Amino acid sequence: MPASAYRLSEIAERLGLRLSLKSPEDDIVITGINTLEEAGPTELSFLSNPKYAHQLKATQAGAVIVRPDHEADVRRALVTDDPYPMFAQALTLFAHPQGSFTGISHLACVHPEANVGEGCTIYPFCYIGPRASLGRGCIVFPGCYIGEECTLGDGCILYPRVVLMAGTVLGASCVLQPGAVLGAEGFGFARTAEGIQKIPQIGHVQIGDRVEIGANSAVDRAALSATVIGDGTCLDNLVQIGHNVRMGKDCLIVSQVGISGSTHVGDNVTMAGQAGVSGHLHIGSNSTIGPQAGVAKDIGEGQVVGGSPTTDYNTYLRTATLIPKLPELFKRVARLEKELGHKPMTEKKADRSLATMWNRWMAKMHHKS
Amino acid sequence: MPASAYRLSEIAERLGLRLSLKSPEDDIVITGINTLEEAGPTELSFLSNPKYAHQLKATQAGAVIVRPDHEADVRRALVTDDPYPMFAQALTLFAHPQGSFTGISHLACVHPEANVGEGCTIYPFCYIGPRASLGRGCIVFPGCYIGEECTLGDGCILYPRVVLMAGTVLGASCVLQPGAVLGAEGFGFARTAEGIQKIPQIGHVQIGDRVEIGANSAVDRAALSATVIGDGTCLDNLVQIGHNVRMGKDCLIVSQVGISGSTHVGDNVTMAGQAGVSGHLHIGSNSTIGPQAGVAKDIGEGQVVGGSPTTDYNTYLRTATLIPKLPELFKRVARLEKELGHKPMTEKKADRSLATMWNRWMAKMHHKS
Amino acid sequence: MPASAYRLSEIAERLGLRLSLKSPEDDIVITGINTLEEAGPTELSFLSNPKYAHQLKATQAGAVIVRPDHEADVRRALVTDDPYPMFAQALTLFAHPQGSFTGISHLACVHPEANVGEGCTIYPFCYIGPRASLGRGCIVFPGCYIGEECTLGDGCILYPRVVLMAGTVLGASCVLQPGAVLGAEGFGFARTAEGIQKIPQIGHVQIGDRVEIGANSAVDRAALSATVIGDGTCLDNLVQIGHNVRMGKDCLIVSQVGISGSTHVGDNVTMAGQAGVSGHLHIGSNSTIGPQAGVAKDIGEGQVVGGSPTTDYNTYLRTATLIPKLPELFKRVARLEKELGHKPMTEKKADRSLATMWNRWMAKMHHKS
Repeated sequence: MPASAYRLSEIAERLGLRLSLKSPEDDIVITGINTLEEAGPTELSFLSNPKYAHQLKATQAGAVIVRPDHEADVRRALVTDDPYPMFAQALTLFAHPQGSFTGISHLACVHPEANVGEGCTIYPFCYIGPRASLGRGCIVFPGCYIGEECTLGDGCILYPRVVLMAGTVLGASCVLQPGAVLGAEGFGFARTAEGIQKIPQIGHVQIGDRVEIGANSAVDRAALSATVIGDGTCLDNLVQIGHNVRMGKDCLIVSQVGISGSTHVGDNVTMAGQAGVSGHLHIGSNSTIGPQAGVAKDIGEGQVVGGSPTTDYNTYLRTATLIPKLPELFKRVARLEKELGHKPMTEKKADRSLATMWNRWMAKMHHKS
Repeated sequence: MPASAYRLSEIAERLGLRLSLKSPEDDIVITGINTLEEAGPTELSFLSNPKYAHQLKATQAGAVIVRPDHEADVRRALVTDDPYPMFAQALTLFAHPQGSFTGISHLACVHPEANVGEGCTIYPFCYIGPRASLGRGCIVFPGCYIGEECTLGDGCILYPRVVLMAGTVLGASCVLQPGAVLGAEGFGFARTAEGIQKIPQIGHVQIGDRVEIGANSAVDRAALSATVIGDGTCLDNLVQIGHNVRMGKDCLIVSQVGISGSTHVGDNVTMAGQAGVSGHLHIGSNSTIGPQAGVAKDIGEGQVVGGSPTTDYNTYLRTATLIPKLPELFKRVARLEKELGHKPMTEKKADRSLATMWNRWMAKMHHKS
Repeated sequence: MPASAYRLSEIAERLGLRLSLKSPEDDIVITGINTLEEAGPTELSFLSNPKYAHQLKATQAGAVIVRPDHEADVRRALVTDDPYPMFAQALTLFAHPQGSFTGISHLACVHPEANVGEGCTIYPFCYIGPRASLGRGCIVFPGCYIGEECTLGDGCILYPRVVLMAGTVLGASCVLQPGAVLGAEGFGFARTAEGIQKIPQIGHVQIGDRVEIGANSAVDRAALSATVIGDGTCLDNLVQIGHNVRMGKDCLIVSQVGISGSTHVGDNVTMAGQAGVSGHLHIGSNSTIGPQAGVAKDIGEGQVVGGSPTTDYNTYLRTATLIPKLPELFKRVARLEKELGHKPMTEKKADRSLATMWNRWMAKMHHKS
């Protein structure tokens, strides 16, 4: 990548850190950032979690961002009380620029009735439909589709192959990762006596400012009105947001989560990977939903839940520990019954289908049949 | 969007509804449809579920589709015994047209040996391979790929970036949402003494009439013969259909469901979000599979199952209620044992790894470390 | 498809099989391969699993690959001690060629500073950025994006709409299915007092030789250094690999699996569909993770685990059998308590929310409301 390089003194100044060198010659040029384990002699590293302090001895890093109590442990230190956010800021100095094209490609199709703001970059093979409007300084990578009457705020980045169906609204400074699809038809079908009836989806998708959408994620347009995602909310890859969902601000939604139609999500909600939320529910602000959780009822403000279906997280942790002990518990109960002279339960034959399926799958995967 | 507008009398006539107005001046112009809560004075709304009847007082809607018993509650009513399907039909009057391009773009690559039916729309940046055949009136949005010898029936819509690999067959009136991939190679690998052996996938994908495939969903081509999806079946977004799966008619498959290779699914099957089905199974017609269910054995006609692995749904609901009570049950059993003079179980230390992982994740997500 | 056709004697010779015919006229021309049930008179089939031996009588197949003990049961046999791998090799004789374009399209954008190896095929609508380098004989299907300074080994195949963000490295003979995204920004966000802070992702993705990535799967680039996938590892469709994950060789990762950031996976690991793995874990070589499993702790070499959270697979199978018996167990314990004169537990009202959600969903899916 285009190499960035800075003297330590320059980095210290830019980040407002105190530079601590053993000698003036130590003000070396830094060319990148890496972990304590992998950093080379011209790379900067950091120590945030004290349990990795022992790595300070072995590291090859040219310099390290540390707390004052570790200043003496390294030849070249950038000193701060809170290394992690400083490290994050240092990263911005070395971030790869993705994309180098500028201007509006003659190989893009921009409808004459589309309105493209000042300083936008439109790569080849993009299609921008009539009455679409892009703010200033947007970057649209190859293969993107921006349908009729979409509105993008200033400084949005659409990575390759993003699709915005007609009427999608983005705020300012949104980042859409490759393959994200906004505004596809919601899953509106109903079984009737005459078979499946499709319910037209005439709404749209409305996204706030600084929203990030992950690779190949999908946000469906509303049946009526809008599917809404609030300012600063970030979705990871392969996330599904159903029609008429309304999400608040600053939510973090991890990969492969699915949120069903018409569910309302508050602010600062965190959902771990592969969690699923049923439709028409309310998820309170500041709540946290665990990995693979299955949410089937409303979640209150600040609640922390896990399991499928969900319980409060402590109950989930306790039951998760007890479930493996069920075979033992059944034995213990049988023993009590015996002592009290009960007839032993006539065990109905155990269902072997799960084991059968599993063995067949193992055999296939390891080709024993 | 291009505004559609109709007088109430025109809507009543088109849908065959009885119009009930307080005065002739009430035959106003309607410009859209919305919920009772959000509808404005020129929008039409509907009341289907009686529990929302109280909203009739507060609504700003210009008119409401209601049952006869609510006719008196609104100034302008469209009266029917079954409002919901009438609402769905009314939607079609106001549905946004997606896409406005017509004809065959000179920026599309259509192979001279491809056969494009009368009245088709081919957007820029589409690639249509040799011996592919499109029926009449198909619409192919930007960035679609239609491989060698694909066959599309009349009136199919391929939204942006749909991929049909060679040999894919679509019936009439299919709708493929953006990013759907049909005919990618099935996951055919076997471990052998010499490492992983790839098993060529020489089959194809065969789709019936009126099938809908969701955004970024994938239907793999068969190892041999065909992966089949029957007429009227609808898949939501991010659904995975493995090679050699055969699905019947009018199935509804909700987002993020995965169906493994060679499983056969009957007609009118409904699968809720994130459910998974193992390979080589038979799923009976009219059966229903719950959210996040894990199907590891055959499901009979009309069965309703839930849980992972699945049980009949009532058992699933009961056990789901009891699992949170396990901590209490273990205490109760310990107490009985004590009364009968058993030595207390020497508890082996509980496995804390789950809580540890969780706490680490929480710390990261809320940046405490 | 371009029909391939071979005489049985030619197939026997190519695969090194013994040909067993009832008469010389039986050396017929074979035009394809199919299952015993579906094969026609000019198609080849095989019998690997003895439990399907009865199909030999009914099959219409022109010839069958069989073990010696079944040689007498068919008119035309190709005889081997291990039919399955021979069948897999026979498939390669009849595999459809996907794609027929050759050369470098004038409708592709190849940056003058990009380096395209000898014999590459670049379809229309591909974008190849500055300083990208493709080895010999790569095939890049329509709509692919190859960012700055990507490096591809010889003989890689990128099916339509694959995205490689800047700096991605592929070894030789990799196959990327349609819509796969490599090198999108990892999900690097932290909550701070000032709200969500984005952590720039300055690393890249590094893929070994003979790696396959499924349709619409996503492999995120590292925050620092690289996200690594080892030689021969195969990912199915809709798989998510988080930033800084490091996977070994010859792993098989089935559809919709998610692996969270910074987890290390050994060699020959198998993960079944929809399994999820938390971040910062170690998954030992030769281990197997069951379907929908939730991995929250390290997995040892060769371990086989299932459930969410995971336990060893036998415990999982046993508990899965016992959970449906919980209602009965609670009754048994209550009965014991009664005999010992305990006051009956005052049952707190069961939580009906799950059933409520379910009934609402069923009603919607079958449109009763």
